[in-house]
Amino acid sequence: MEGYRLFLALLASALLLGFLSVLFALVWVFQYREGLSWDGAEAEFNWHPVLIITGFVFIQGIAIIVYRLPWTWKCSKLLMKFIHAGLNTIAMILAIVSLVAVFDFHNAKNIPNMYSLHSWIGLTAVILYSLQLVLGFAVFLLPFAPVSLRASLMPIHIYSGLLIFVTVIATAFMGFTEKLLFALKNYKASPPEGIFVNTLGLLILIFGALVLWMATRPQWKRPPEQNSKLQQPNGGTEESAMTDCSKAEKADVEFNSEAAARKRNLKLDEAGQRSTM
Amino acid sequence: MEGYRLFLALLASALLLGFLSVLFALVWVFQYREGLSWDGAEAEFNWHPVLIITGFVFIQGIAIIVYRLPWTWKCSKLLMKFIHAGLNTIAMILAIVSLVAVFDFHNAKNIPNMYSLHSWIGLTAVILYSLQLVLGFAVFLLPFAPVSLRASLMPIHIYSGLLIFVTVIATAFMGFTEKLLFALKNYKASPPEGIFVNTLGLLILIFGALVLWMATRPQWKRPPEQNSKLQQPNGGTEESAMTDCSKAEKADVEFNSEAAARKRNLKLDEAGQRSTM
Repeated sequence: MEGYRLFLALLASALLLGFLSVLFALVWVFQYREGLSWDGAEAEFNWHPVLIITGFVFIQGIAIIVYRLPWTWKCSKLLMKFIHAGLNTIAMILAIVSLVAVFDFHNAKNIPNMYSLHSWIGLTAVILYSLQLVLGFAVFLLPFAPVSLRASLMPIHIYSGLLIFVTVIATAFMGFTEKLLFALKNYKASPPEGIFVNTLGLLILIFGALVLWMATRPQWKRPPEQNSKLQQPNGGTEESAMTDCSKAEKADVEFNSEAAARKRNLKLDEAGQRSTM
Repeated sequence: MEGYRLFLALLASALLLGFLSVLFALVWVFQYREGLSWDGAEAEFNWHPVLIITGFVFIQGIAIIVYRLPWTWKCSKLLMKFIHAGLNTIAMILAIVSLVAVFDFHNAKNIPNMYSLHSWIGLTAVILYSLQLVLGFAVFLLPFAPVSLRASLMPIHIYSGLLIFVTVIATAFMGFTEKLLFALKNYKASPPEGIFVNTLGLLILIFGALVLWMATRPQWKRPPEQNSKLQQPNGGTEESAMTDCSKAEKADVEFNSEAAARKRNLKLDEAGQRSTM
């Protein structure tokens, strides 16, 4: 892989920033706010930032770059698709639970729903994300879509994924702004909580910037030739790792009897995917 | 050009949404707020959203896609670089004036500066945008940078440009949220001004999404072969348009005596640029 060390450094930084963001969200709600519970009060609302940052920012970001991890290139594409779809499904579930928390809190407190730009764009992002997940599952994971359809939809899938990701981050920033203005009477005096949450915003901004950089470097794309190599593994030190993932691939084939037919068309599929960025 | 009609439809939509966004910003400040003036009061603050949306969103968006307009492919690359840099310079000037307006307003009203996530990320975006402009000018417009440096910096230039653009839009959304929460006591009751500004946010979101789509389609990149064609224009109906732009190119050469030397390296330069997305 070209620039492997740089990739590792950026990946480590992204993971660190992602973990730090989740940690900051937890410190925010436990140190400065009312903690977490499910009782219709502020502590129920607090699930909203915690789950959005964990699922919709951090896990979604990792799901975006999971194909880029060079040690996964020995694994079957189908296995990686399951991991990509699985991470995105977890992110979607967390996002939906976080929406339930905020609607539940609003209803318990007689606060109107859906009046703010944050709510308009946030709900749009969740709906588009769900659509993206369902369409992605139907087109790229289920074995029914023709290769030509996959090739033509892949650029849209990648673009939508990145667009939803940046939209989610923008929505989180609006959420921070709203919460700080509602909760802090002295936000303008830069109290510790204000500085802390602003810093959380910067962490998420840099996390997002790193994910976008890694996801759009053509030299860090999963190389298509690794797939054919995998089907005829050769000896050497790489063999054991490849065998591990070959086992995984064997399981994939058993799981999905049409996978083999699809693999014959893999090169065309890959070509379609690689035409995007 | 592949998908020319689709490109035109998207361009027309982007222009319409961009103009509508500027119009909405003007209606917002004149219909719902205190209009525009330069007196340290609210009407001075109002320059902030108007100039940011006009310069930092709309003009920056157009500057990003200006190389993609197929009718400019007959013009010299140098001319297009000047247009790209010129639009970005206008955007930067408007952004800086809009910052002066808001600092001036804050100082006149004894409101603290730089306490919000909006201000932190917004100022970062303006600083990075200025750096991007200065570096872009030094590396891609001035004739001193070696072609290898240009080729290696172009992916970073494109990535930074798009990242700053989406960051500016995210910052605008935080600004709308702040302003509506400060100015509208009944924002939660969805008053007309709240709905109007939320709609402005959606217009900007779709404008940004269209610009990002057009800017990242590989089939809509300015083709490198058009440059060599331009240096030896042949007859036919295309000639008049090409001659117009050849004149522009002649002026470029007079303007910049080293342009010819650079053009010898154009193919390598273009190759570097095309390696990005």
